[in-house]
Amino acid sequence: MNFIEIIKKKRDGSELSKSEIIFSINNYTSGQIPDYQFSAFLMTAFLNGLNEKETSYLTEAMLRSGKVLDLSSIKGMKIDKHSTGGVGDKTSLIIAPIVATAGVNVPMISGRGLGHTGGTLDKLESIPWFRTDLSLSEYKNVLKKCSAVLIGQTEEIAPADKRIYSLRDVTATVESIPLITASIMSKKIAEGIDGLVLDVKTGNGAFMKNTKDAITLAASLIKTAKSFNKKVITFITDMNQPLGNNIGNWLEVVQCIEVLQNKKRGDLLSLSLTLAGAMIYLGRKARSLNEGIKIAEETISNGSAFDKFLEIVKLQGGDIKFILHPDKYPHSKFLETIYSTRNGFVSQVDTYRIGMASLELGAGRKRIQDKIDPKAGIIFNLKVGDKVKKGTEIATLFSDSSSKINIAKEMVSNSIKFSSKKTRQLKLIKRILD
Amino acid sequence: MNFIEIIKKKRDGSELSKSEIIFSINNYTSGQIPDYQFSAFLMTAFLNGLNEKETSYLTEAMLRSGKVLDLSSIKGMKIDKHSTGGVGDKTSLIIAPIVATAGVNVPMISGRGLGHTGGTLDKLESIPWFRTDLSLSEYKNVLKKCSAVLIGQTEEIAPADKRIYSLRDVTATVESIPLITASIMSKKIAEGIDGLVLDVKTGNGAFMKNTKDAITLAASLIKTAKSFNKKVITFITDMNQPLGNNIGNWLEVVQCIEVLQNKKRGDLLSLSLTLAGAMIYLGRKARSLNEGIKIAEETISNGSAFDKFLEIVKLQGGDIKFILHPDKYPHSKFLETIYSTRNGFVSQVDTYRIGMASLELGAGRKRIQDKIDPKAGIIFNLKVGDKVKKGTEIATLFSDSSSKINIAKEMVSNSIKFSSKKTRQLKLIKRILD
Repeated sequence: MNFIEIIKKKRDGSELSKSEIIFSINNYTSGQIPDYQFSAFLMTAFLNGLNEKETSYLTEAMLRSGKVLDLSSIKGMKIDKHSTGGVGDKTSLIIAPIVATAGVNVPMISGRGLGHTGGTLDKLESIPWFRTDLSLSEYKNVLKKCSAVLIGQTEEIAPADKRIYSLRDVTATVESIPLITASIMSKKIAEGIDGLVLDVKTGNGAFMKNTKDAITLAASLIKTAKSFNKKVITFITDMNQPLGNNIGNWLEVVQCIEVLQNKKRGDLLSLSLTLAGAMIYLGRKARSLNEGIKIAEETISNGSAFDKFLEIVKLQGGDIKFILHPDKYPHSKFLETIYSTRNGFVSQVDTYRIGMASLELGAGRKRIQDKIDPKAGIIFNLKVGDKVKKGTEIATLFSDSSSKINIAKEMVSNSIKFSSKKTRQLKLIKRILD
Repeated sequence: MNFIEIIKKKRDGSELSKSEIIFSINNYTSGQIPDYQFSAFLMTAFLNGLNEKETSYLTEAMLRSGKVLDLSSIKGMKIDKHSTGGVGDKTSLIIAPIVATAGVNVPMISGRGLGHTGGTLDKLESIPWFRTDLSLSEYKNVLKKCSAVLIGQTEEIAPADKRIYSLRDVTATVESIPLITASIMSKKIAEGIDGLVLDVKTGNGAFMKNTKDAITLAASLIKTAKSFNKKVITFITDMNQPLGNNIGNWLEVVQCIEVLQNKKRGDLLSLSLTLAGAMIYLGRKARSLNEGIKIAEETISNGSAFDKFLEIVKLQGGDIKFILHPDKYPHSKFLETIYSTRNGFVSQVDTYRIGMASLELGAGRKRIQDKIDPKAGIIFNLKVGDKVKKGTEIATLFSDSSSKINIAKEMVSNSIKFSSKKTRQLKLIKRILD
């Protein structure tokens, strides 16, 4: 087989065979196919698309490029959750302990933040000494002991995805539904799961800006999951404002602690319970989604989910002192609160810009090699539909650099639109697909 | 400026600005943009196209990546010819001495063969000691002395084209009209010419398989040439059978000698006279194309073109002993003649396959690093419309490998279709555009 002929075939709009896709992925992963050829191939896939069959073959080839974990020694169902990413999206830290408490295993492999969205790994690593780089045997041990584990992608899991993702990132081939599908599903299936709950975000803070694109991506993910006999429930959820209030790694951990301690209600709790409920249902510990949500609520109200969170943090090396006493965590050198200069109602939030402001403060990465400041970020107090008066606190910004605060302040102030008329709250869950 | 944003822009179908194109070419040529990004860009250009303006900007950027020769110290007009390539296309060796004899300068920079088509450089280098790697000052000297010079692309001339062409070749981005246009025109304009005659070939032995595509390419070339104020005449010519009879480097030189010595008539002579006539006309040594052709014919019949050829070969270091006595050239170890097994008329020739058979015998390259056997090739005796009888000689194959002869024999035999009814000859010149 000749890779140039394969590029030509996709370039000219033909369907690739399973063996052509396997040849391409295997030879790229092994270094036989150079980056400059593979990027041309990625662009043909981006522009001419991959159909359902091709996407499934691609997923399989990427999955088989590494180890597929065998979790059969661990009793019970293994269910994971995947979110397509947004601003302030920290549900994983709340969901994993809830679902584990309910008796369903949560083997979770997460990513880092890039651009305006945060990453679960960065949030976890803001907890002092928390290790996300467990070996696969440590990973299994933690999972066996407490039914949940949260790590980063290892070299052994879908190495093809790691290589391809890095290349897509620098060749303008990221926003392709079949390529996103194969990237997500190859990793998730390699985890050895039985089922998956998907949170596909849509709105001005998500990768999918409109519901139509989100549904197209969801449909592609669902079809691919099913082609591997994995159970799946998908939620299309709103990302037209930050989820919860805190944005920035340690700030988000703090808000998760509040939620797990039953001290904080609102959209973050509500979405976490829904996603956790779906996982409990897929894990056969509830007979319906609603029953799953009820069970999830109980783990919060009786404190068992918070205890489980402490257990996970401890088992992964984290210092629970800071979980029990978040105020002991180091503080940013500078903080500044923005106040409303008018009366009215919040009508729109430019969520992307708020994510970029948080990145500017030090909470995110502009380039892959950038270091994160775990303390930096934003507490954003408003939700669309809220009434504000002159002097209402809009947001508080945290950073070790005062000049960064000045830049971010401008960005956050400009990201909100007010109306003199009453505005409607946003609907959080737009669709459920399965 | 950010190259990823430029890729995205073309990927999403927008027009690129002059500064974006210049930025891309300059930074790729200097090594700031890596191959893997540039190949993704090439694929967007391939699939989404470049319009007339973008093609002209691209040509200019590639042209300016190197030296633009200043031939103002050489008196008279400087006119070149470019052919898009075919099987047995050796007109350059005949045209250059004709046009130089007529008093028009021919500063010719040619390429090597790749795939089924031959390259002028390889043909010239089959002449012992002939040097195609002259420095630019040697190049000017030869041109000054004998009004014609034939060399290969140097590092100084359009280095961007050299880098881009190598990348296109391995990323399935060759057959793109704007990319082909910029590649041809950037080199030709860098030669310091006043005008250009284009031979755009169409048919089963050409890159453009049908006349429509050939006209599209011709139109793109003409528009770009005119945007640089270059005079241009374009011929759309037939490549549904080999041009002349000899295919393979030294074999083609031998046939050029025969034509220049007025010993051989037919399509090769006819096309050479037409193209040379157009160059003489563009070079203001004739008042019309027809007068140009007449002048060209005289240089053949009075022997002056052949004398000029000897002069060029001598000045470029070639051994004219072999030009005067071609039979002194080394012979292939094996030769085999194919005979017709039936009576009838030649109705079709698969020219691509004949080109590939010649490559198989050793006359061409499968990969850029392959070595060429200058003696290898085919003498193909038939033309579409010819009457054959059982036992008519179809072709003679030359190679140093008997197994290669066996493979090529099969290929050549299968490349001809016969009809029992009389068939029509092919029209050589399909269109003239200016």
